[in-house]
Amino acid sequence: MKKRQSEQGLIAKITRGSKGNRVSAMVLAPGDDAALWSPGAGRDTILTCDWFLEGTHFLRDKHPADAVGWKCLARAVSDIAAMGGQARCFLLSLALPPQLTGAWLDEFLRGLRRASRGLHCAMAGGDTTKGDAVLISVTVIGEVRRREAVLRSGARAGDAIFVSGVLGEADLGLRQLRRVRGLAKPSNAALRKHLYPRPRLELGQWLARNDYATAMMDLSDGLSTDLPRLCAASGVGAEIYGDSLPVTKLTDALDARRLALHGGDDYELLFTVRRKDASRLPKAFHGLRLTKIGEITPARNIRLITAGESVPLASGGWDPFR
Amino acid sequence: MKKRQSEQGLIAKITRGSKGNRVSAMVLAPGDDAALWSPGAGRDTILTCDWFLEGTHFLRDKHPADAVGWKCLARAVSDIAAMGGQARCFLLSLALPPQLTGAWLDEFLRGLRRASRGLHCAMAGGDTTKGDAVLISVTVIGEVRRREAVLRSGARAGDAIFVSGVLGEADLGLRQLRRVRGLAKPSNAALRKHLYPRPRLELGQWLARNDYATAMMDLSDGLSTDLPRLCAASGVGAEIYGDSLPVTKLTDALDARRLALHGGDDYELLFTVRRKDASRLPKAFHGLRLTKIGEITPARNIRLITAGESVPLASGGWDPFR
Repeated sequence: MKKRQSEQGLIAKITRGSKGNRVSAMVLAPGDDAALWSPGAGRDTILTCDWFLEGTHFLRDKHPADAVGWKCLARAVSDIAAMGGQARCFLLSLALPPQLTGAWLDEFLRGLRRASRGLHCAMAGGDTTKGDAVLISVTVIGEVRRREAVLRSGARAGDAIFVSGVLGEADLGLRQLRRVRGLAKPSNAALRKHLYPRPRLELGQWLARNDYATAMMDLSDGLSTDLPRLCAASGVGAEIYGDSLPVTKLTDALDARRLALHGGDDYELLFTVRRKDASRLPKAFHGLRLTKIGEITPARNIRLITAGESVPLASGGWDPFR
Repeated sequence: MKKRQSEQGLIAKITRGSKGNRVSAMVLAPGDDAALWSPGAGRDTILTCDWFLEGTHFLRDKHPADAVGWKCLARAVSDIAAMGGQARCFLLSLALPPQLTGAWLDEFLRGLRRASRGLHCAMAGGDTTKGDAVLISVTVIGEVRRREAVLRSGARAGDAIFVSGVLGEADLGLRQLRRVRGLAKPSNAALRKHLYPRPRLELGQWLARNDYATAMMDLSDGLSTDLPRLCAASGVGAEIYGDSLPVTKLTDALDARRLALHGGDDYELLFTVRRKDASRLPKAFHGLRLTKIGEITPARNIRLITAGESVPLASGGWDPFR
């Protein structure tokens, strides 16, 4: 009979190497009942958690294990970016079928540690157990200077609406991945963005620090699903300029527009800027494109303006319960 | 076709009523990308997370939904008690089959809110998605006065070993629950403890504040599994007095001893006390029994002493990978 790893052995494997990765504010490394944490002086702690489930959020026969490790942390960190904060540490809840505690787990941890280093977000603890499938829940702890956090609720009529980067690329990557036989490789920009998304931490912090963003969130479920959430929180509506959307060039124009409006998983930032500040924003931030895509309206609905025609924009993004 | 709830509707249902339940230190209620948190002055934040999975940690046809709601929070809060801290808020990661978003979810939330009020631990946010089974991961945020947190690593040779309450009762409750047809009721102390465990927050805080506990942890996997973890963290061993164990009276003596040594899910506190302090500890704390069950030894092994005979104590507790 194949000897299986005990839970204790598994914990040792997961937390190995996490000591050299410790954040200065962390009082206690993994291993105790809980981790102790203190933010820097004059800073608030930001808390967020995110599911990453086999079958729902990734496919084990298509997504390389190291991409699962990268993405489960990156997408949770994106919520910190959306508040204008810095990521500091995370807790990993991981349930695994026993036969995956070998090579699959090693690859997963390689991707997770690469994300942990790249995003300056150290492992602070977690919980492991047996599951019928790979179940992951990541809690990220970040920090932000007091009163600098950008909420969803600050958008006002007349504010310009901006997005970072290109929209719809990750969904195009997902479409390509479904067609591939076996594990996908990051062979173009769309697949790279789907497999290894990069949360926009520096941009979020810059927008918060300079008081440019009146409201902000990250695009995880698609513009047509996420924008109504920002508008509802702010008690406003929006007009989106269909011809201004930063679309991917990897597919035809109509398809690219549809992907930009409804595609999920981009983890770009959606933010609003006072009219007087809008013209002062650069066209790009450290090489990342910033595009004005519309305007906040007092009327509480979302409309799409294309070639002078205005139509209601229906949510077409991803909802696991639909 | 039955209309299913959207994710947005589900979030509204889950966070309903959580405003009146807000902790003073919480800057932001659920609904944004993340929650903002600040501990009180001179306090560290404690972070911990815990799985609670259908099939692994509970059975949907045996455990009432409100007990699932109570227990998923109570067992995570127990890790805060084990550090000597106060619970403050939690994040709920919940995945549900769509057909459970009605009555089952209502009952679950009833139990969760009762635990939230009783343990003074407010909902700060979370993430919901669809799952093939009920999947729950709870992250609890607590706080403790700086330098008062009790770790697992502080036990020294000669320290007395104590436990709170009665050991083995929850495992006996689980055994009774397995025999019941349909949903279990909390009809005796064992079933009550299995279904609605009470984390020992006040005791943990009292032990920490008075500097009584040199090391502490909560008993979740059983004494014979958890004590070696505390000893390993402290670089020591232990002798346990078999005749001193606080056993349940609901079964015969031999069975009760076995349950006390190996039974999991009790969420009592296991703690060590300097020899000079041991005799000053009361027999009970607010009605909760405190029992000296052994002594820390320099030799790094765990032995069970019964009627003058000393035998090695092998781990017999619960390990999901065994």
